[in-house]
Amino acid sequence: MSNCIFCAIVAGRAPASVVLDEPDVIAFMDIRPFTPGHLLVIPKRHASGLAELPPEDGAKVFAAGQRIAAALRASDLPIDGVNMFLADGVAAGQEVFHVHLHLVPRRAGDGFGIVARAQSPNRTVLDGTASALRAAVEAYRS
Amino acid sequence: MSNCIFCAIVAGRAPASVVLDEPDVIAFMDIRPFTPGHLLVIPKRHASGLAELPPEDGAKVFAAGQRIAAALRASDLPIDGVNMFLADGVAAGQEVFHVHLHLVPRRAGDGFGIVARAQSPNRTVLDGTASALRAAVEAYRS
Repeated sequence: MSNCIFCAIVAGRAPASVVLDEPDVIAFMDIRPFTPGHLLVIPKRHASGLAELPPEDGAKVFAAGQRIAAALRASDLPIDGVNMFLADGVAAGQEVFHVHLHLVPRRAGDGFGIVARAQSPNRTVLDGTASALRAAVEAYRS
Repeated sequence: MSNCIFCAIVAGRAPASVVLDEPDVIAFMDIRPFTPGHLLVIPKRHASGLAELPPEDGAKVFAAGQRIAAALRASDLPIDGVNMFLADGVAAGQEVFHVHLHLVPRRAGDGFGIVARAQSPNRTVLDGTASALRAAVEAYRS
């Protein structure tokens, strides 16, 4: 996609600080890091969101993310944990419409976290919700 | 693992509101949902974290998450986006030590979000960080 900044990075037409470069996947630093070392893993082939992403590209993105996360935790860098985060859709906070998996290195007191109005529904409510989601998943398959 | 609550769910020894049940992966409702419909996708085979997770199981977890997310967004349910979230390590907020991918259905005003002290490092700093991370990834491979 000619107007996609991540496609421009893949093509070498835009700058990026690259951590991993494989045939189908590239990982580079986020320019607005949530924590030091925050990076993005993307498929080289353009896909705006999860619905358009070929599953084999998704598998490669996750595998690269998994390997990088394990490597960072095993290293001498001050990284004691890693969060993966992905936003699919404007309502989820997606800003660049080329699938990207955030890897956020963590350590105590780094200021990163989630805010939510967590609920505690009972099992009847959970079963009802699961039933509705299951129907949606089954309808999508067929 | 006999003391793992997610292994107990896989074995049918603990209750769960199941959305998807496949040979190697199961998805069920989070009992403390961040938003309505918040669910977890897990590998059936126990793995405490990303470093222990066989890559083929990781690929299946991500593929199931991708498919469920796309199905929910394509459905008539009030879901306009989806966040994926995964915590690896205590410092990242991991509480159950059996790998689990959160799927958080989103809509405007649902109260879910990320808090972070985002920085704007210049390219020299980003390149330096990328270099350190790249060395860690390369050391982990060998």
